Amino acid sequence: MNEDLIRIAEAVRSGVAAVPLSERGRILAMGADGTPTSHIDKVAEDIIIGYLEDRAIPLNLLSEEAGFLNRGYQETLVADPVDGTHNACAGIPFYNVSLAVGRDSLGGITEALVMNLVTGDVYTASKGKGAFLNGSPIRVRVPGKEMLLMAYLGAAAVPRTHEIASRFKRVRCLGSVALEICSVASGTADAFFIEYSEIKKSPRIVDIAAAVLILREAGGEAYGANRDILDMPLSLEARSNVAAAGSKAALELIS
Amino acid sequence: MNEDLIRIAEAVRSGVAAVPLSERGRILAMGADGTPTSHIDKVAEDIIIGYLEDRAIPLNLLSEEAGFLNRGYQETLVADPVDGTHNACAGIPFYNVSLAVGRDSLGGITEALVMNLVTGDVYTASKGKGAFLNGSPIRVRVPGKEMLLMAYLGAAAVPRTHEIASRFKRVRCLGSVALEICSVASGTADAFFIEYSEIKKSPRIVDIAAAVLILREAGGEAYGANRDILDMPLSLEARSNVAAAGSKAALELIS
Repeated sequence: MNEDLIRIAEAVRSGVAAVPLSERGRILAMGADGTPTSHIDKVAEDIIIGYLEDRAIPLNLLSEEAGFLNRGYQETLVADPVDGTHNACAGIPFYNVSLAVGRDSLGGITEALVMNLVTGDVYTASKGKGAFLNGSPIRVRVPGKEMLLMAYLGAAAVPRTHEIASRFKRVRCLGSVALEICSVASGTADAFFIEYSEIKKSPRIVDIAAAVLILREAGGEAYGANRDILDMPLSLEARSNVAAAGSKAALELIS
Repeated sequence: MNEDLIRIAEAVRSGVAAVPLSERGRILAMGADGTPTSHIDKVAEDIIIGYLEDRAIPLNLLSEEAGFLNRGYQETLVADPVDGTHNACAGIPFYNVSLAVGRDSLGGITEALVMNLVTGDVYTASKGKGAFLNGSPIRVRVPGKEMLLMAYLGAAAVPRTHEIASRFKRVRCLGSVALEICSVASGTADAFFIEYSEIKKSPRIVDIAAAVLILREAGGEAYGANRDILDMPLSLEARSNVAAAGSKAALELIS
């Protein structure tokens, strides 16, 4: 399965790179998730759908723009064709394609891939078999003196995000949820925090399915409201704020 | 002059790429600016010094680690060999080399180049001749509904940074001052804000010399304390907090 995920991601990377910056943000329609579909999202999703169809890959598809495509199989490919669409359209070099395979819910995801579409760096995981960056095993970091937080900030963030951010020596806000969670998995960051004041803007399963498996396989954990272990159905309707940590010390700082 | 700056930047990019991630952060000594010199900073600076010497380039050097090298010329190359050292060492793909040529002070800078060492994207400017990204003219953006701020956040940021950030729809904190200021120049962001609670941590001329000329040539402005037009001597001892804006509306949001 992972070979297919890598081939899909590489095809998306090539397809996205071929779209000039000035064309990327053109709004085409509203996606199945209720947010506008940019040209770049459509290009990337069409590549994914084409791959599944052309090679008769035995997977349904749940994707940001197309919604759920029931192709009659037991397992589903949960895809965010471009995570970090604003970055991709604005010329900020952080955005990724996020691909996960499983059934029923977040806990039922068994294969995951997140590819940075700028650098080509690729995070992968298979349930029970560890997590990898470009093929090398990755692991969450041991907390030290210089804690680093990846957080969502800006007008729609709950005010306590800022209080939490001020507890960390370093803060980054990169605008690409899956890559930020993967940076906790790889030990680049200690924690990730995203909490919108309106739940209707919070992450969906397509944004986080792959990254959360990668994080868990690297020794970290992802949490929802009230710091319960995060689970979500494979549906675009479910949304959840997300906190992710590589250690107990990091979890305390974001609680 | 710009041809030399581009060649230096390309040499730094190759040199940095050749250093494995695990080697980059090794601390060698204290730099002339009083901060520790990482292996990656030394590699990059040695490439710059070597270029000036081998080709007998008629410039003094003011650089983060080496300090001021008086080579007997009127003009000085103001260099930050790696801006965003933490990113470069931690595997966050966003860091740059920053090169500026001029005399006396920030206002006396006449040539500037900032290269993203990951993507190779290169911002350039010559005083009075406009600013460019990969050779195409760039311009600050007209403020719209979706304002984007680049800001320094984390434990050492003044508390009002968080209040300012909450006024913007989008916030990014990318950890590389020169690239963040250049993103205002190119119209990706509306404003940039960095204010440390301790002035001894604030940016120096090496961090901002190139980016500020690029910003000004693109139609923006950079400000210091009390929102006076920013100027600084060509010395590692001077530090200043920095606000940068592409429009009056953006300046109001960060004031």
